[in-house]
Amino acid sequence: MPPQPARRSERSRRAILAATQELLTESGYAGLTIESIAARAGVGKQTIYRWWRGKGAVVLEAIAEHLPEATALPDTGDLRADLRGVVRATVAEFADTGASAVTRTLTVEILVDDELAGEVRDRLLRPRLEGVRARLEAARAAGQVRADAPLDQVVELVFGPVYHRWLLRTSPFTESYADALAKLVMTAVTPAGR
Amino acid sequence: MPPQPARRSERSRRAILAATQELLTESGYAGLTIESIAARAGVGKQTIYRWWRGKGAVVLEAIAEHLPEATALPDTGDLRADLRGVVRATVAEFADTGASAVTRTLTVEILVDDELAGEVRDRLLRPRLEGVRARLEAARAAGQVRADAPLDQVVELVFGPVYHRWLLRTSPFTESYADALAKLVMTAVTPAGR
Repeated sequence: MPPQPARRSERSRRAILAATQELLTESGYAGLTIESIAARAGVGKQTIYRWWRGKGAVVLEAIAEHLPEATALPDTGDLRADLRGVVRATVAEFADTGASAVTRTLTVEILVDDELAGEVRDRLLRPRLEGVRARLEAARAAGQVRADAPLDQVVELVFGPVYHRWLLRTSPFTESYADALAKLVMTAVTPAGR
Repeated sequence: MPPQPARRSERSRRAILAATQELLTESGYAGLTIESIAARAGVGKQTIYRWWRGKGAVVLEAIAEHLPEATALPDTGDLRADLRGVVRATVAEFADTGASAVTRTLTVEILVDDELAGEVRDRLLRPRLEGVRARLEAARAAGQVRADAPLDQVVELVFGPVYHRWLLRTSPFTESYADALAKLVMTAVTPAGR
């Protein structure tokens, strides 16, 4: 009995995403083409275009597939320690050459393609931003964050400076840099007198 | 007497930069070509390539020429007010469609071209970042900023969140957003007990 169409489709989809991931790792985004993905995955180009608008969209999905499941921030009860952890992890990611190349690619794509920008924001970034926001909300409920702190903006205070440093390549990413950033954010949100 | 070569060169250079600025305003970066700049400026393409490596480099110089002279931050003695002013101005710039399109262009260019990235950083951004840093240093000397605040990182705390919001198009740019950011930064740097 031949495989059912839905299962065959799913198999092709997985092969395409796996091929994309492999080619990205091997030779980066610049050399990646729909042709090379199709050849590696053993499918026709039309199969790729049936599901994705172009290279950027396939890459986005390949990356999203491989993201760690957990976007929730650990909650040890110690906001300072938890924030330091998330800032260190973010800094380490931006300092990593391979991960940085992928982020660079996606950043260029979202700057030139509005539709893809929305997908990247919603699928890759929003869960992460919301994880930090949820942790800040819990801390606020526990009296560890000022009642009037604008939490969406505090989230940007965590990620924005890292992005800025990465984008402008102004200075290196070190652990002491990460910890100093976490400390600045903590100072900005801690209620007076604590 | 024919014009001297140096003066003729300077006239061509100015014509090229003016043409670039006009074409950018009229039809944006995407449609801009070295050919269209040469035609508008009344010079040959080779004249442009003699001075610039490509489109990104000409655009960078055209923008740099038109930047306001003063990059120094006002120093009214009131750091809160001065920071609010710089954040409001930055937010207004990112909210402006025309300026935003140019920034988008330059951001793509610096992501794909290391050499241009260095020029953009040094010519367009560093003076601005250093203006804020100098203001923070004066405030620190006046006891309005914690002695141990890492000033380079405080500067990134001012600009990074705006860049992040702009890049990810997460939320609108309002004056109340700008003021809340300035307030967060102030809280992060103000010495305890003040």
